[in-house]
Amino acid sequence: MAYKYSTELLYEAAVDQLHNLGVTLDDIAEIVHLLQVDYIPDLTMGECRENIVAVLQKREVLHAVLTGLAIDDLAEKGMLPEPIQSIIASDESLYGIDEVLPLGIVNLYGTIGLTNFGYLDKKKVGIIDHLDKLKRSNVNHEHVETFADDIVAAIAAAAAARIAHTRL
Amino acid sequence: MAYKYSTELLYEAAVDQLHNLGVTLDDIAEIVHLLQVDYIPDLTMGECRENIVAVLQKREVLHAVLTGLAIDDLAEKGMLPEPIQSIIASDESLYGIDEVLPLGIVNLYGTIGLTNFGYLDKKKVGIIDHLDKLKRSNVNHEHVETFADDIVAAIAAAAAARIAHTRL
Amino acid sequence: MAYKYSTELLYEAAVDQLHNLGVTLDDIAEIVHLLQVDYIPDLTMGECRENIVAVLQKREVLHAVLTGLAIDDLAEKGMLPEPIQSIIASDESLYGIDEVLPLGIVNLYGTIGLTNFGYLDKKKVGIIDHLDKLKRSNVNHEHVETFADDIVAAIAAAAAARIAHTRL
Amino acid sequence: MAYKYSTELLYEAAVDQLHNLGVTLDDIAEIVHLLQVDYIPDLTMGECRENIVAVLQKREVLHAVLTGLAIDDLAEKGMLPEPIQSIIASDESLYGIDEVLPLGIVNLYGTIGLTNFGYLDKKKVGIIDHLDKLKRSNVNHEHVETFADDIVAAIAAAAAARIAHTRL
Repeated sequence: MAYKYSTELLYEAAVDQLHNLGVTLDDIAEIVHLLQVDYIPDLTMGECRENIVAVLQKREVLHAVLTGLAIDDLAEKGMLPEPIQSIIASDESLYGIDEVLPLGIVNLYGTIGLTNFGYLDKKKVGIIDHLDKLKRSNVNHEHVETFADDIVAAIAAAAAARIAHTRL
Repeated sequence: MAYKYSTELLYEAAVDQLHNLGVTLDDIAEIVHLLQVDYIPDLTMGECRENIVAVLQKREVLHAVLTGLAIDDLAEKGMLPEPIQSIIASDESLYGIDEVLPLGIVNLYGTIGLTNFGYLDKKKVGIIDHLDKLKRSNVNHEHVETFADDIVAAIAAAAAARIAHTRL
Repeated sequence: MAYKYSTELLYEAAVDQLHNLGVTLDDIAEIVHLLQVDYIPDLTMGECRENIVAVLQKREVLHAVLTGLAIDDLAEKGMLPEPIQSIIASDESLYGIDEVLPLGIVNLYGTIGLTNFGYLDKKKVGIIDHLDKLKRSNVNHEHVETFADDIVAAIAAAAAARIAHTRL
Repeated sequence: MAYKYSTELLYEAAVDQLHNLGVTLDDIAEIVHLLQVDYIPDLTMGECRENIVAVLQKREVLHAVLTGLAIDDLAEKGMLPEPIQSIIASDESLYGIDEVLPLGIVNLYGTIGLTNFGYLDKKKVGIIDHLDKLKRSNVNHEHVETFADDIVAAIAAAAAARIAHTRL
């Protein structure tokens, strides 16, 4: 089927939007390395990066990334209708849709993807911790990263699972 | 914890937004009845309606409903960033986030919720069929119901599962 | 890593055990064809079969198939401890683990896999209907197919989703 | 519907079988406390225990617990058919059905249940660590705890999520 936008274009848009949040593929590769190096001692950062790129070639993954980051963007601009605008902008404690949407990424990589995602959601490491702190310091909601940290965690968890399935 | 908005207010917002799409709780109750009457011959429309209301008392369910309908609303107004604006507005064939988000509703009601949701997603009945046809007839995207039909299916599937767990 | 059993051997074991239940890959291909022919009019039975074989090359899929069929086998022989022996042998109406286990298959193929599985679980077609009727006619539990019908539905749903992702 | 076994009887069977593995409800309560005390400083062990008992009143939860522990039991006795007998007895690194089955427990408690489960699966604490070490030290497979540690993690994660939904 002919799509209006190629997968390549969606990939470029996703990487650009992550960059705008201060997140590089190398930041994500560091998390992937951390998750898998205990099991695969010779794992290189290059292999982590390649697996992230492979994850980001799937159209479904890109749909999840772009949808999540679009919601953050609109919440940041105050453009969502109330009451959901306030709930998302403040990342209310029981708001969990930011953890549901990444299931569209991690489920594709089996239970290793899912459990790594759960781990990263609790134990925020590296750039995820940075995004989370940015969000929490941000009492006036000039920046909204409600979905961003979970999206980054899901990409890292998926890439880690992809490595496990190739190497273990 | 004190929320900015009470659950009651979220419920009213969700019901109002469904009404604006032409969806009443009775429309959803008809689908629930259809799903369960073979197993529970004495099932009344009133019991279906009560179970829908009970499903819509859960804050997580309301979060999913309000987030999904907000995405449709913004896509309809052309306010999402490209390329995701075009993908959602046209409900591209491999776009599946509209089926991921309702998992936040149906998973709470176990596998009966999940399988009923899968069934309704394929076999569009009643108001879901109406929303789906509205969407497909709508080539210029003045109306966007990409998430709406799946949200309605998820509410019906959850209420059907709730009845099964109470009555079977 | 060196496994005790190769993936090829697991595949042979899974296909053999399905044959013993009277289920051939062609029976499953018929269901896959039914699910996708409306979207892909030139879909052949050969293509359906190839996609089933591809699904059954994944070690995780084979793990789910072999685990589910082993539980049925032991329940049939009355070798599970009570009370779970009776619950599984009679496929009690709220027993849903036979629908949870196949999530390990269908989730790998995204929401199209999941919704097709839900559909087949409700709308039993072809060999799934046959297995289901066998189970229901079987009041003394000489044959137990509690997991078998759901496993077959999951393989068909996964293959259908794999075709959708390749062809749509 | 009249069940052959009451929910109370299933509960007693589940608690007994956990005891036989050296796992008490207090062991699980310690994990729940650990997961939630940062968010709820006045959380008591009694409240953790009550929530575990509430989780274990759901028939679907008990089905998952009893099915998982039955598989371990049969694998320990060498009664599963090959090749799945060896795969489960050795908890092969890519065998993930022991993480799929507990989804039937944690999904009922929303994304907080799911992410806590993923966290515990990676970061084994308390009795889960004990079960995991028992399994790993056990090269001849006289004891099989392939499902047991994940079942315990799922009960703890579900109880933690139940507390979060009540108290946050």
